[in-house]
Amino acid sequence: MQIIAVNEYLANKKRLVDEALRDFFSQKNSLFDVMYYSVDSGKRIRPILAIAGYEVCGGEDTGVIMPVACGLELIHTYSLIHDDLPAMDNDDFRRGKASAHKKFDEATAILSGDGLFAYAFELFCKGDSHASERLEVIRSVSQAVGPKGVVYGQMLDISDMKRQPNMLRNIHLNKTAKFIAVAIKVGAIMACAKKTVVDKLYRAGLCLGMLFQYTDDILDVVGKKSDLGKTPGKDQASGKLTAPAVYGLCGARFRAQRYADRTKSRFRELGSEFEFFCEMTDFVLNRSF
Amino acid sequence: MQIIAVNEYLANKKRLVDEALRDFFSQKNSLFDVMYYSVDSGKRIRPILAIAGYEVCGGEDTGVIMPVACGLELIHTYSLIHDDLPAMDNDDFRRGKASAHKKFDEATAILSGDGLFAYAFELFCKGDSHASERLEVIRSVSQAVGPKGVVYGQMLDISDMKRQPNMLRNIHLNKTAKFIAVAIKVGAIMACAKKTVVDKLYRAGLCLGMLFQYTDDILDVVGKKSDLGKTPGKDQASGKLTAPAVYGLCGARFRAQRYADRTKSRFRELGSEFEFFCEMTDFVLNRSF
Repeated sequence: MQIIAVNEYLANKKRLVDEALRDFFSQKNSLFDVMYYSVDSGKRIRPILAIAGYEVCGGEDTGVIMPVACGLELIHTYSLIHDDLPAMDNDDFRRGKASAHKKFDEATAILSGDGLFAYAFELFCKGDSHASERLEVIRSVSQAVGPKGVVYGQMLDISDMKRQPNMLRNIHLNKTAKFIAVAIKVGAIMACAKKTVVDKLYRAGLCLGMLFQYTDDILDVVGKKSDLGKTPGKDQASGKLTAPAVYGLCGARFRAQRYADRTKSRFRELGSEFEFFCEMTDFVLNRSF
Repeated sequence: MQIIAVNEYLANKKRLVDEALRDFFSQKNSLFDVMYYSVDSGKRIRPILAIAGYEVCGGEDTGVIMPVACGLELIHTYSLIHDDLPAMDNDDFRRGKASAHKKFDEATAILSGDGLFAYAFELFCKGDSHASERLEVIRSVSQAVGPKGVVYGQMLDISDMKRQPNMLRNIHLNKTAKFIAVAIKVGAIMACAKKTVVDKLYRAGLCLGMLFQYTDDILDVVGKKSDLGKTPGKDQASGKLTAPAVYGLCGARFRAQRYADRTKSRFRELGSEFEFFCEMTDFVLNRSF
């Protein structure tokens, strides 16, 4: 993959993902319109990581990776919709507009999330090639986003937990890092990369995911609503276990930098063609949205 | 498959499914315990249909079909948990005990459903054999239970709809029939049945699924709470579009009988080895729970 500025890469791929998502939601039933309301915005970090993983590992056919990449975005969107529900984080604002349950109602929001989750797996199966790779994708993703991953992390996140560093790590690892890591992993799987490369990429991705959640926690303290597209200060106000809550803002920033260094070192171990992910790491470290 | 009395077959297979489910939920994290609370009961209709479809089509290895069959039960359980939420049907009683949101809380119930959904797909991938069949299973199930199937049906079900026969059919077909039909279909797929057989079984299964929802609607009127394990009269009270609401109780019973006849005729077209499904059809027609 030709190394271009990470901002340009992100913008190009975001445009392609946006287009593909529009296609995947066109000319279906009324529920698809409701689901698309929540899908139609977002940074597209996970699909872009999947595409980058695919391209870095030698994948050349965007048509092969795109449905898989978009499936990840649908799962991310479903988790945001359910997360924002009154019974969960009760957030009325997401991705720069009213959350699904405010735009529609709670029942519609719940079903809209459920629909996105199911449709993601339909997209993972889209295409005639790569049967065993697709199965490996589904196995990896269902583990990463289910009750051994994202859903477990969210469960811990809403629990009444002691403010222990170990618990913070456990929440970050499950709620965020596994999903970020699996996004890169599925790109590599669909490019038929060697298992050793796939595994090393996943481990580097876990580190990138921890960094991602650290910057998310920090932005909850210092970010602007207009940049974030969601309400800052919510985690603080609700007494959530966040990096700044455990380590203070300076401590959290110090540790975020350390995660960034560790992430880049892991990607560099894989070889110079993985340099893009180091730039991506710096982008995540310095992001304001 | 040796033809034995349908009641005996159901009891035997239910025991096997119950055992397998216990195994799939043992020694995991605390979220698995929460999810198992809702899983630990139920008629196991969908997994049994999958096993029957597998055996009727010549499948002999229970270890191959069991994780797939159990995955279907997890998806059914997740849909019940979300259906019972206060924002949806607001039902406090399910499978003979407190619904998940009453036993725990709403947030836990939402996450518990989400976790079951994801874990189902992990189970579909469990095993080293049948990669392309498993992918076909996942493709079929995600279509049947997602926004072109169950979730769409639930969306219609909670909408403010005119009491038209067409709309009733649309709700029954999406909310129930596609899932029942796909249960039999995945059994046939995992037994490597011919595509023509798989397709015919699916069409017969749709008819069985329509019958299943008709008897469900009728039992909402005439059933007992102790038999049903859920609150009867809820659909009536909430003004839902049901078969008795559209056709009256007698009309609904008449049409249920007609669906049963049609279902049996479709299964019989497939050959005498599919006779078990005719007995199953009579069982569904005459069920009291």
